[in-house]
Amino acid sequence: MKPVAPALQSLPPGVTRPADYEARARAILGDDAWAYFSAHAGDGQTVRANRAAWAALALQPRVLRGLRSIDTTTVLLGSSLPSPLLVAPMALQRLAHPDGEVAMAAAAAALGAGFILSSQASQPMESIAAAFLPDRHRGPLWFQLYLLPQRAATLELVRRAEAAGCEALVLTVDAAVRAARPLRLPPDVLPVNLPPTSAPGGTLQDLLALAPAWEDVAWLRSVTRLPVLLKGVLHPADAAEAVRQGVAGVIVSNHGGRVLDGAVATATALPAVVAAVERRIPVLVDGGVQGGTDVLKALALGAGGVLVGRPLLWGLAAAGAAGAAHVLRLLRDELELAMAQCGAGAIAQLDGSLLASGA
Amino acid sequence: MKPVAPALQSLPPGVTRPADYEARARAILGDDAWAYFSAHAGDGQTVRANRAAWAALALQPRVLRGLRSIDTTTVLLGSSLPSPLLVAPMALQRLAHPDGEVAMAAAAAALGAGFILSSQASQPMESIAAAFLPDRHRGPLWFQLYLLPQRAATLELVRRAEAAGCEALVLTVDAAVRAARPLRLPPDVLPVNLPPTSAPGGTLQDLLALAPAWEDVAWLRSVTRLPVLLKGVLHPADAAEAVRQGVAGVIVSNHGGRVLDGAVATATALPAVVAAVERRIPVLVDGGVQGGTDVLKALALGAGGVLVGRPLLWGLAAAGAAGAAHVLRLLRDELELAMAQCGAGAIAQLDGSLLASGA
Amino acid sequence: MKPVAPALQSLPPGVTRPADYEARARAILGDDAWAYFSAHAGDGQTVRANRAAWAALALQPRVLRGLRSIDTTTVLLGSSLPSPLLVAPMALQRLAHPDGEVAMAAAAAALGAGFILSSQASQPMESIAAAFLPDRHRGPLWFQLYLLPQRAATLELVRRAEAAGCEALVLTVDAAVRAARPLRLPPDVLPVNLPPTSAPGGTLQDLLALAPAWEDVAWLRSVTRLPVLLKGVLHPADAAEAVRQGVAGVIVSNHGGRVLDGAVATATALPAVVAAVERRIPVLVDGGVQGGTDVLKALALGAGGVLVGRPLLWGLAAAGAAGAAHVLRLLRDELELAMAQCGAGAIAQLDGSLLASGA
Amino acid sequence: MKPVAPALQSLPPGVTRPADYEARARAILGDDAWAYFSAHAGDGQTVRANRAAWAALALQPRVLRGLRSIDTTTVLLGSSLPSPLLVAPMALQRLAHPDGEVAMAAAAAALGAGFILSSQASQPMESIAAAFLPDRHRGPLWFQLYLLPQRAATLELVRRAEAAGCEALVLTVDAAVRAARPLRLPPDVLPVNLPPTSAPGGTLQDLLALAPAWEDVAWLRSVTRLPVLLKGVLHPADAAEAVRQGVAGVIVSNHGGRVLDGAVATATALPAVVAAVERRIPVLVDGGVQGGTDVLKALALGAGGVLVGRPLLWGLAAAGAAGAAHVLRLLRDELELAMAQCGAGAIAQLDGSLLASGA
Repeated sequence: MKPVAPALQSLPPGVTRPADYEARARAILGDDAWAYFSAHAGDGQTVRANRAAWAALALQPRVLRGLRSIDTTTVLLGSSLPSPLLVAPMALQRLAHPDGEVAMAAAAAALGAGFILSSQASQPMESIAAAFLPDRHRGPLWFQLYLLPQRAATLELVRRAEAAGCEALVLTVDAAVRAARPLRLPPDVLPVNLPPTSAPGGTLQDLLALAPAWEDVAWLRSVTRLPVLLKGVLHPADAAEAVRQGVAGVIVSNHGGRVLDGAVATATALPAVVAAVERRIPVLVDGGVQGGTDVLKALALGAGGVLVGRPLLWGLAAAGAAGAAHVLRLLRDELELAMAQCGAGAIAQLDGSLLASGA
Repeated sequence: MKPVAPALQSLPPGVTRPADYEARARAILGDDAWAYFSAHAGDGQTVRANRAAWAALALQPRVLRGLRSIDTTTVLLGSSLPSPLLVAPMALQRLAHPDGEVAMAAAAAALGAGFILSSQASQPMESIAAAFLPDRHRGPLWFQLYLLPQRAATLELVRRAEAAGCEALVLTVDAAVRAARPLRLPPDVLPVNLPPTSAPGGTLQDLLALAPAWEDVAWLRSVTRLPVLLKGVLHPADAAEAVRQGVAGVIVSNHGGRVLDGAVATATALPAVVAAVERRIPVLVDGGVQGGTDVLKALALGAGGVLVGRPLLWGLAAAGAAGAAHVLRLLRDELELAMAQCGAGAIAQLDGSLLASGA
Repeated sequence: MKPVAPALQSLPPGVTRPADYEARARAILGDDAWAYFSAHAGDGQTVRANRAAWAALALQPRVLRGLRSIDTTTVLLGSSLPSPLLVAPMALQRLAHPDGEVAMAAAAAALGAGFILSSQASQPMESIAAAFLPDRHRGPLWFQLYLLPQRAATLELVRRAEAAGCEALVLTVDAAVRAARPLRLPPDVLPVNLPPTSAPGGTLQDLLALAPAWEDVAWLRSVTRLPVLLKGVLHPADAAEAVRQGVAGVIVSNHGGRVLDGAVATATALPAVVAAVERRIPVLVDGGVQGGTDVLKALALGAGGVLVGRPLLWGLAAAGAAGAAHVLRLLRDELELAMAQCGAGAIAQLDGSLLASGA
Repeated sequence: MKPVAPALQSLPPGVTRPADYEARARAILGDDAWAYFSAHAGDGQTVRANRAAWAALALQPRVLRGLRSIDTTTVLLGSSLPSPLLVAPMALQRLAHPDGEVAMAAAAAALGAGFILSSQASQPMESIAAAFLPDRHRGPLWFQLYLLPQRAATLELVRRAEAAGCEALVLTVDAAVRAARPLRLPPDVLPVNLPPTSAPGGTLQDLLALAPAWEDVAWLRSVTRLPVLLKGVLHPADAAEAVRQGVAGVIVSNHGGRVLDGAVATATALPAVVAAVERRIPVLVDGGVQGGTDVLKALALGAGGVLVGRPLLWGLAAAGAAGAAHVLRLLRDELELAMAQCGAGAIAQLDGSLLASGA
């Protein structure tokens, strides 16, 4: 119930839902940037399954609870946050808009959402952090990374993230091994925070050599005081192992359907992962989240936070920081509205009893 | 098996089912009125789910029962009524047709259906009641209300409804908190029975302040001798609480999919609510009812009455009172026919054994 | 493996499956005749469900069984029949083709299928029987009837059927009460075997007065030595009652979706009915059967015979007796082929183990 | 991780998935050849079910397993093979491309896939074997056969296959009895390895006389030292019988939906067959496999090898040996990638725990 940010005043007319930005982004973006952001593995089965799985969950709201306000305060990793929403780590956001990650971070800060800074950001991480950290009501700033070929380089990246003010590390575990896709990107949009190494060899063996293992997780935890989360966990056995290994949290994700086509929808995978961690660490989720009721359903299934990806890129592409902020505001408003309609005044009141089993 | 009302003589040709009126209404109504009546929350998931859930229920009829007549007499709140059908409370019916609620009430009275008078009616409630009450074979006249900002104003509304002859109060519990929608309505179509208060503030907190709570239900029951029903109950726990609180009945409704997109279909929610109240109070239902077999299925699932909404508006829009009456007559005829085809001569003979589990 | 009848030599080119005749019939039939035959109740939910339910059953065939021949001999009501197929009773077949029921009966006789003579036939039943009975390899000749307003008239009809050589009576129990449909039929196509009574009153009560009851079944059984079957049974409780009442057989049917829209698909209803009669009387089935695998699936679910309706009308409309015979031959060939492919050399070898539960 | 074969250098542009070849093949093939290869029984229910059943299985991948390489080595019939993929036996491949089976065999050899030589090949089996056998990393060479009318002729075929170097016999058990289809094929594309017998009589009895039985399986096993597998097993009871009879393996297949429409999808049938053989013999599968994740899912369900059919024909049609090899390479690469993404470095690590039950 924060006042609307001034920057939101000149937005595309007729946008009332996050998904409305997709067509606008398609009209603005060049074919290459559109292809890059909307890409999916295989036939797109998992992209469609992600959406369908949220839609298949039906809500049975509670009434007459005498709510006087809606509080989206979320406790995550010991911190009290204004919102359960986080901006998913997405590479090369200057492809979407010249203002890139700095604009996205400013939007997230203004709306109280968390921001997961991609190690493939197209702007210096320090500039991005500077756009995010000053906001008083901001959410968490986390740094996403892949393992680099040399641990020294990885460590340098971690140190820079720590120095920039990042509050947790998110190790992506599901995407080191993926099909190469021909990319025709403008020469001036680059992952500027990564060392100017020659591209890794394209063989599967080359890719596997870069894929993280549990021992890398242990090493990463040993070199930083920041909490380490794993992004890309779908199997409950891996979630249980993450708890055993002392990981700070897991993010149920199939990389937005971009890596393994046929991977289970995240809304389908979430309950078993939540059950496997036995409330010892938070479980976050992303994939196909396009509206406030999707967020509410994720939280009702036990998610401790919800990452949003492409809808924010479409907002950024269509209207820069204001567009991304608008998407976050729409999501926040829809979430608050849906909580009120479900009789839940606080995030902790969202649980499985809100989901109709017979639907 | 009442004779056809004279007013039904000049109807649009080719209408044989209630749904046939929708296209006719679309052709007649202006864009704004059409948008107002056909609106739904979000992507319309719940609107579609309401229809699909009735269609997914399959009937296994009984044969050779030697029926000599079909009796739709329904006992509700201690009264014997000619029909299980009720006109759902719908706002501003003069947007559909200049004759508005008066015409709708006359149609309902002529066909023996109940009429739930919306507190947002566009004609004086006394005029509407006057069109309804004189009919000898009429159904019940109930008054629907939302809580008003001041209890005194709410009480005044209740007193007017009592004085006008309303026989029960229906407190809507699912719609105080909803997304604002820009409305461009003609200046002369207004909720004339409500106090000319300035519009409530548009913040969620403002809306929550107006949302009813269980203590408001208790207050409402304390100030009137009329039975009080709750409209908008989907969760069995709320239905059970309603019984504990002494409420006279509950109406399973998701507000026609207009409030919370993703809410469970009413046909899906109905059985658990029926089970939760353990036959102590009647459970009514609305949402997606477009034909006599939908009504029969609702009654077979344990509903004590069935509300019909948009199809009646389409009939009213297309042909005034005669159109609305035609829709009710088609529904009545279809229900009687379906009862006969299922071997049920009376409403009390409709139960779950008519529904095929394997379908 | 009967030789092809000579009459089949000049058939429409390109027809390889029964369903291929539908488009040809549509092109040939006038709008009124097409509307009459293809009519369905309500939205056509049950028509679609009939088809979908057969398609949803998956076969897991047996192999290497060393079959040397396929024998479709079926024992029904104590007789050994060349085929489990029967022509469903269909009214006014001269609307489809000038040769009408006589042609259809000749086709059925030539292909060894049974023929259920509709009491609403458009040709004298004696002529129809004369076209059917002489064939040496013919199936059974049954007579379908509705109760007439006077028992004397019904009895006269039964006596004529007996005299004409009919071997069983099929009492239709699901269609006395149905919605009136405006029919514009040519004046010379009439139910010539029925008494020239004035049409019954159109009220529901008038219709109910004509609907059969269990006492009518008992009366019918008392006045004839022919076995009496009931057509239109969907509920297992009615099937069990039929056994108790001494009925000779039941036909699981929803009248091709023409009577009660929302009625359960016959393939869905069949297993429970089969279970309810505990093998004491045969259970036949119709509705949506368009191919030999549909017939095989019905038999595997426990049906003792399978009625085919509309596909035969389309064949009759497109090519007279030869067209109807072609449809029956295609069905017979498809059934024999499917039996061979499933490793079943005889009808008795078809059972539920051929149906994949996981499909 | 074999280097790309030189022949793959000039391939149609824009092909990134096996299915991309289908449209290219359609554009190149004449109508008759296209109809021959894409034919299906009935309405194509089983063709569609095959695809849908693979797509309905959802993967829940494992992460962080520290894989250093992916090994697709598969043990089958006691041999260690470079790949679980085999080229399904397909007739008359010269209809697809003038280079025919020789090209297909060369492609299979180059990619380490097995090759099942159809007895209806359009080139001498010795030439085909000569194109396949010399490759050092090749997979198995098996010979597919139908029973011929005379055992002597069948035996001669077996002896030729043995002499040509075939390492197992695959007896097709599901296709002797099938609907005749009018074929207009070029006169120079013939099953050159079969004796120039007159076509068998077209009656069902003629066809049945040629259908194999268990005693034929025993006879075949008695006259050869080669292992004998059965292709076309869908029922678990037949799989169990195959074990009892001493058969070397079974191939779960519905003949690509070409024989019995309505047959269960192979992905649906596979688990029960795997359970029935209790790991005593290998179970292979084909039908609808179009991508590496389909292969992985089949292996996870317990398949010991996976046959690929039509996609290879489309590749052959579009670009000869290079096209077929490209399809196999795409499948191999997709399988290796999917294994890596699922955390499985070896085929033996693929099991049911990778499949999400809730999807």
